Amino acid sequence: MADGVERPVRVAVCGTGHDADAGLLEAAEEIGRRLAEAGAVLVCGGLGGVMEASARGAAGAGGLTVGILPGRDADAANAWIRIPLATGLGEGRNVLVVRGADAVIAVGGEWGTLSEVALARKIGIPVILFRPGLTAGLGIPEAHTAEEAVTEALAVAAGQT
Amino acid sequence: MADGVERPVRVAVCGTGHDADAGLLEAAEEIGRRLAEAGAVLVCGGLGGVMEASARGAAGAGGLTVGILPGRDADAANAWIRIPLATGLGEGRNVLVVRGADAVIAVGGEWGTLSEVALARKIGIPVILFRPGLTAGLGIPEAHTAEEAVTEALAVAAGQT
Amino acid sequence: MADGVERPVRVAVCGTGHDADAGLLEAAEEIGRRLAEAGAVLVCGGLGGVMEASARGAAGAGGLTVGILPGRDADAANAWIRIPLATGLGEGRNVLVVRGADAVIAVGGEWGTLSEVALARKIGIPVILFRPGLTAGLGIPEAHTAEEAVTEALAVAAGQT
Amino acid sequence: MADGVERPVRVAVCGTGHDADAGLLEAAEEIGRRLAEAGAVLVCGGLGGVMEASARGAAGAGGLTVGILPGRDADAANAWIRIPLATGLGEGRNVLVVRGADAVIAVGGEWGTLSEVALARKIGIPVILFRPGLTAGLGIPEAHTAEEAVTEALAVAAGQT
Repeated sequence: MADGVERPVRVAVCGTGHDADAGLLEAAEEIGRRLAEAGAVLVCGGLGGVMEASARGAAGAGGLTVGILPGRDADAANAWIRIPLATGLGEGRNVLVVRGADAVIAVGGEWGTLSEVALARKIGIPVILFRPGLTAGLGIPEAHTAEEAVTEALAVAAGQT
Repeated sequence: MADGVERPVRVAVCGTGHDADAGLLEAAEEIGRRLAEAGAVLVCGGLGGVMEASARGAAGAGGLTVGILPGRDADAANAWIRIPLATGLGEGRNVLVVRGADAVIAVGGEWGTLSEVALARKIGIPVILFRPGLTAGLGIPEAHTAEEAVTEALAVAAGQT
Repeated sequence: MADGVERPVRVAVCGTGHDADAGLLEAAEEIGRRLAEAGAVLVCGGLGGVMEASARGAAGAGGLTVGILPGRDADAANAWIRIPLATGLGEGRNVLVVRGADAVIAVGGEWGTLSEVALARKIGIPVILFRPGLTAGLGIPEAHTAEEAVTEALAVAAGQT
Repeated sequence: MADGVERPVRVAVCGTGHDADAGLLEAAEEIGRRLAEAGAVLVCGGLGGVMEASARGAAGAGGLTVGILPGRDADAANAWIRIPLATGLGEGRNVLVVRGADAVIAVGGEWGTLSEVALARKIGIPVILFRPGLTAGLGIPEAHTAEEAVTEALAVAAGQT
């Protein structure tokens, strides 16, 4: 403690919002839980769908959850976000979700997720896909189970530091 | 003039940067020229490759060129940008390139372009692809000549207003 | 033209919005007119009050006007903005107004203006005040006529390059 | 836990960076400590001076510290930041520091701090000053001890929700 605080790994989980199916949500929740069990901080966009499910999983396992919100109102965060950060930047906040993390797991995903994945690749943050949506076919590593997604994300995140 | 100024259509051209091949650059220059001939303002990211070629084409035809730069230095803009806007936002400026336009033409394109295209689709700015790179396979309308790209972009831009 | 386009000086005018009094608006309009007569591009936040008056002055003299808007809708720009750039960044756009310019003239001004002036000083963009509002008492150079504000802004802008 | 997680109050501490004198740093550290003892999360810009001192105080008391950094590198955060969020937005991140909080305490302060205080006032986040620097004379409430600053910040933060 004399020299500073321990800094846990941060992993961003992004993915399908309102239209996420039950399978995606279940996987996202497991991913969040496993990240928390590994001591990682969950970073996400703070809203619904995959963002909410992963935050619920992480919070349920005692993990810290950070939601980087597009709007101006912290109260718009889902109920499982412990640290809501309202940005007021709209989709301009997408780059912050990935820059705030050591690695990104994308679960499913439509246009917003695709933008986050592309920004992550552009700026050099490693990405792991799970059940890719619009993010398929881009040559990005893909995990086939929630467990594998977390293991790989933590491995590439460690490679970051 | 008593009631205000005429507001020309703004079209963003994004695409491959440093690694653009001669064919892409030639097409980008023609796209810029045709946009200027149609009276449109060219918006782009202000740097090299497709951004520079399209700006050269537009400026050569007397068009107005706006470069929304990632860095803090307006002098980093390519020589064909008449209005450089340094943002200091890094890749955070990508969302501004597409929000600043009524339509987007993506020429080739790697991760940065893909992020711009995805952000445009997310926020409802119409996109036309020309020789898609990483942007292929997403169901986005594609033009097969520079002329067609400009015609379609102007048509969808008009639909915006 | 073989080597590139001429790049006019860009001067940002910021200041009081809705509550600007007639004197401020008259001065802002004259500042805009004089900037345009000198060949400068006017950059502003695109909305009402001083922003609108300065844009009206510049546009009336044939100058180019760029409005960097907080919201997502380019149509929210005042009628004298030729190039509206919607950012969707809210007050996050304030830094772009000053970074986009070689010098800043602040006319009157409340909290938003003060933030722009402070950001300009922080990042090294020169500022000239005219009838300072909340921006008074900070040791920033002050002009006493619209003509003087423009002369000094153009002088410091030239020193920038 | 069935319905969501508890969301602690977030207070931003901003202020003088590299040139902070010993008195300011001591006060900032006490402010950080008292915020942590009250269960608040400390949000700051993540760098040196007042940001570092307040984070050290908070971390030393077991509090959570969030650093919203201007650059692209999370490792640029001071040693007392547990959750570094690299933004790559430069001074564009200043608006995020204040939007991320329920209240702001400004300790001393030069141009960067003044921009944060002005942005906070513009967007309606309450501000408490302690030993105001450039932020003096603006009619913003001022605390005369570190204890008073924290008490008042927590009071106005509570009024926010």
